[in-house]
Amino acid sequence: MTDHIEFDRQAMILRLLDQRKLPLERSFVVCANARDTAVAIADMVVRGAPAIGVTAAWGCVLAAHSHQRNENWREAIGADLALIDSARPTAVNLAWAVKRMAKLMPLAESPQQLLTRWLDEAASVQAEDIAICEQLGAAGAAITPDGATVLTHCNAGALATAGHGTALGVIRSAIAQGKRVRVIADETRPFLQGSRLTAYELREDGIDVTLACDNACAHLMASGQVDLVIVGADRIAANGDTANKIGTMGVAILANYFHIPFYVAAPVSTIDTRTSSGRDIPIECRPEEEVLRLGGQPIAPSGVSAHNFAFDVTPCSLITGIITERGILRAPYGEAIASLFRGVESSL
Amino acid sequence: MTDHIEFDRQAMILRLLDQRKLPLERSFVVCANARDTAVAIADMVVRGAPAIGVTAAWGCVLAAHSHQRNENWREAIGADLALIDSARPTAVNLAWAVKRMAKLMPLAESPQQLLTRWLDEAASVQAEDIAICEQLGAAGAAITPDGATVLTHCNAGALATAGHGTALGVIRSAIAQGKRVRVIADETRPFLQGSRLTAYELREDGIDVTLACDNACAHLMASGQVDLVIVGADRIAANGDTANKIGTMGVAILANYFHIPFYVAAPVSTIDTRTSSGRDIPIECRPEEEVLRLGGQPIAPSGVSAHNFAFDVTPCSLITGIITERGILRAPYGEAIASLFRGVESSL
Repeated sequence: MTDHIEFDRQAMILRLLDQRKLPLERSFVVCANARDTAVAIADMVVRGAPAIGVTAAWGCVLAAHSHQRNENWREAIGADLALIDSARPTAVNLAWAVKRMAKLMPLAESPQQLLTRWLDEAASVQAEDIAICEQLGAAGAAITPDGATVLTHCNAGALATAGHGTALGVIRSAIAQGKRVRVIADETRPFLQGSRLTAYELREDGIDVTLACDNACAHLMASGQVDLVIVGADRIAANGDTANKIGTMGVAILANYFHIPFYVAAPVSTIDTRTSSGRDIPIECRPEEEVLRLGGQPIAPSGVSAHNFAFDVTPCSLITGIITERGILRAPYGEAIASLFRGVESSL
Repeated sequence: MTDHIEFDRQAMILRLLDQRKLPLERSFVVCANARDTAVAIADMVVRGAPAIGVTAAWGCVLAAHSHQRNENWREAIGADLALIDSARPTAVNLAWAVKRMAKLMPLAESPQQLLTRWLDEAASVQAEDIAICEQLGAAGAAITPDGATVLTHCNAGALATAGHGTALGVIRSAIAQGKRVRVIADETRPFLQGSRLTAYELREDGIDVTLACDNACAHLMASGQVDLVIVGADRIAANGDTANKIGTMGVAILANYFHIPFYVAAPVSTIDTRTSSGRDIPIECRPEEEVLRLGGQPIAPSGVSAHNFAFDVTPCSLITGIITERGILRAPYGEAIASLFRGVESSL
């Protein structure tokens, strides 16, 4: 599944599969400029940290295209990039992608030149993301036993990336190696990414998946039905603390209680070395209507208020390993991450 | 709120508020015989261990009424009682109420005499349940600090009992004593008892309640927003292991991790001394459609399967105290429960 983020160079538009409407409807949202792209990210037409990064890169291309005849193109494009950058606060891949694109701005002498370069760069971001997921998948397949039942939370799949997926990429790679793997997908309220997206894309690929309400997790673990947990990440701090979809920390605490390995799968671009620990990661609060209504229908008494934190932060002490495209990081994560980034710098 | 289980002696029918339709609609299901009552319990028109017990007692009355002119009335009524008894497997109050009613059968010389006695006995079961909840509430209020935010799971309120409630009865009693108490209600998928019932009845009473998805629990605890957890129970084993709504064990493990007191509130009738530990408590599996659809609408891809365990078992080691109408039981629960039941026997 790689057609959910598609840039049309003829029409200069970005087509995004509307993930809010899956699995009942496959429809697309069209973005023609930076504002459309920022709104699509904020409204969760597209979600998942790596997918948001790829979408943001194409949003930059649209910004450049919008200002081809603007005398103050640098300022105008810069303002558009700031708009995209502020669409959602937690996933660091958004800022990472915008920053990567922005680095090329000073080198361009005209908006035409910038557009040409950015078209190539955004295509690279997208292609690299699939390649990274495949490398990450291969690394994670090594710790996925044959016959394992893997519990996952939210959707860290093809739909959350440019393709293949992070947590689900590990499962796809293990299956490609001939291992038998079954998946339990937490439904992941309130947005139901597990029911609507994870179950959907695994079923499309013929992978054995069973849904469970988020609150069935402890019983499934207590009754020996879970061998391994693999989840994605929205931001990993320098010490290994990991922000991911609300509920992830709960799953990690349960896995710890039942002595079940708990892995995070994410590209190196999700690690933010400028965030020292989980305390510094901003947690997005989304509209309470997302909890109080489902499919437009009220599911709670009118006038009641609701908490709707979009993410939580799993302390690094609860993480068995962080699966990246450059191998599996182990505790102490502060050292492992510092050494990884020293490697990145020295290889540049 | 005490009009949700109402027996009409004129018409000889039982009117049950249809809890599946709350809070959007207040409609009633009418039961005219034992089969209607068993179906209403199985289909969750009424739910909550004490409320199921009260409903079952009235179901026995309807059984007696159905067989007033039956020569083999003892056998016919016995078969009806077995039908009611088998409606749901986990909550022990169902079996407790049927057993209490059945004890009066040998004393009756005619179905007319049985009907008269049972009308009184069922009315006693219902009235006692409210009185028990009020005593239990007073006991629990003592451990509820002024200014506390209490997290609760599922609905252990007036709607789950004949009135006042168990976990919510503690909160009502604390507030009646002048304490300020705020409630966080887990929405409790898949049946949404938290959103639909707990939020509804607390709001009706003007008690401060905020909803949260089940998977927000860890974040709420980690960020210091929960002072105390109080939940109900469907069956408490002789060693204190407690079956309650799916997700309760997860909340208990999280409370333990964050050093937050975790209390169970239940009448003594919920303690089953013939069940030695949680391993012997049967866990009901309900139709997977309850997870895959909401309000009739599919929320997952067609053909995907789902786990739907209705209950889980919280190990007694995670329970700070069990609040009953006879005071608060503390660990070691095996001894506390044995001593409580020795007391019951000696007072008979």
